[in-house]
Amino acid sequence: MSALQFPEAPSDKKALEEGTAFSPRFDAAGLVTAVVTDAEDGKLLMVAHMNAEALALTLETGIAHYWSRSRNALWKKGETSGNVQTVVEMLTDCDQDSIWLRVKVLGHDATCHTGRRSCFYRTVGLNDGKAVLADDGSRPLFDAGETYRKPV
Amino acid sequence: MSALQFPEAPSDKKALEEGTAFSPRFDAAGLVTAVVTDAEDGKLLMVAHMNAEALALTLETGIAHYWSRSRNALWKKGETSGNVQTVVEMLTDCDQDSIWLRVKVLGHDATCHTGRRSCFYRTVGLNDGKAVLADDGSRPLFDAGETYRKPV
Repeated sequence: MSALQFPEAPSDKKALEEGTAFSPRFDAAGLVTAVVTDAEDGKLLMVAHMNAEALALTLETGIAHYWSRSRNALWKKGETSGNVQTVVEMLTDCDQDSIWLRVKVLGHDATCHTGRRSCFYRTVGLNDGKAVLADDGSRPLFDAGETYRKPV
Repeated sequence: MSALQFPEAPSDKKALEEGTAFSPRFDAAGLVTAVVTDAEDGKLLMVAHMNAEALALTLETGIAHYWSRSRNALWKKGETSGNVQTVVEMLTDCDQDSIWLRVKVLGHDATCHTGRRSCFYRTVGLNDGKAVLADDGSRPLFDAGETYRKPV
């Protein structure tokens, strides 16, 4: 558990948008959105969520932690795959309900659980009145099946 | 109203992650997260939300539309300020609950309602055991007070 606490967001809009107090606006589920880019070339790697504990641990350790909504658990990214994210810079937005992490990815330099560098590997377009996806050709950088294999 | 419909997300993980059907996974409030970057230099501009209608209109018109959670209304970005976003590319992530828009911003080339180019103008750091914000020095590119002034 981290001892770091975050203050309540101020009701004053000017204080929230122009002030120096970090008062993240967690949603009803206690989460903020986290956008993660590569600090070197700016590539968008993933979108995830953080609760107060994940946010505090990320600030204190310099290693990205998230809240896994599917597993309902604190998630130290890369714990299994080795693809740990070290935080180069953290920013927040005007109304403090989103976090931007600029990171360096260790291990295979891959962020997506499919093995690809980024979770965003498909473009969305219209074809004959239907929205369809096209793969951008990104290849896996590690063997996801092997890495995440559950012990028998 | 747009006529474009999106299919239900498949329960099969492989189809969701590797398929060509665009089946956005809207949350309980009917929204997906949208991350918006400048198509030219990759700068993160804003994080917003889209419902099915905003997503469909964005795809059909090539102009970014969102769902404003604060106003509870469809939001054609830039309608008041002129800072309309034309979509250069739309992508989705592995589990199709986030959208990435690569855009060109018209008008003042500003995205934030404070007048700044990006909503992310403050870094988060630790100082004496407290999380604090530091302004990155971005200056407003238009007069937000004047632009968003309500008619008397």
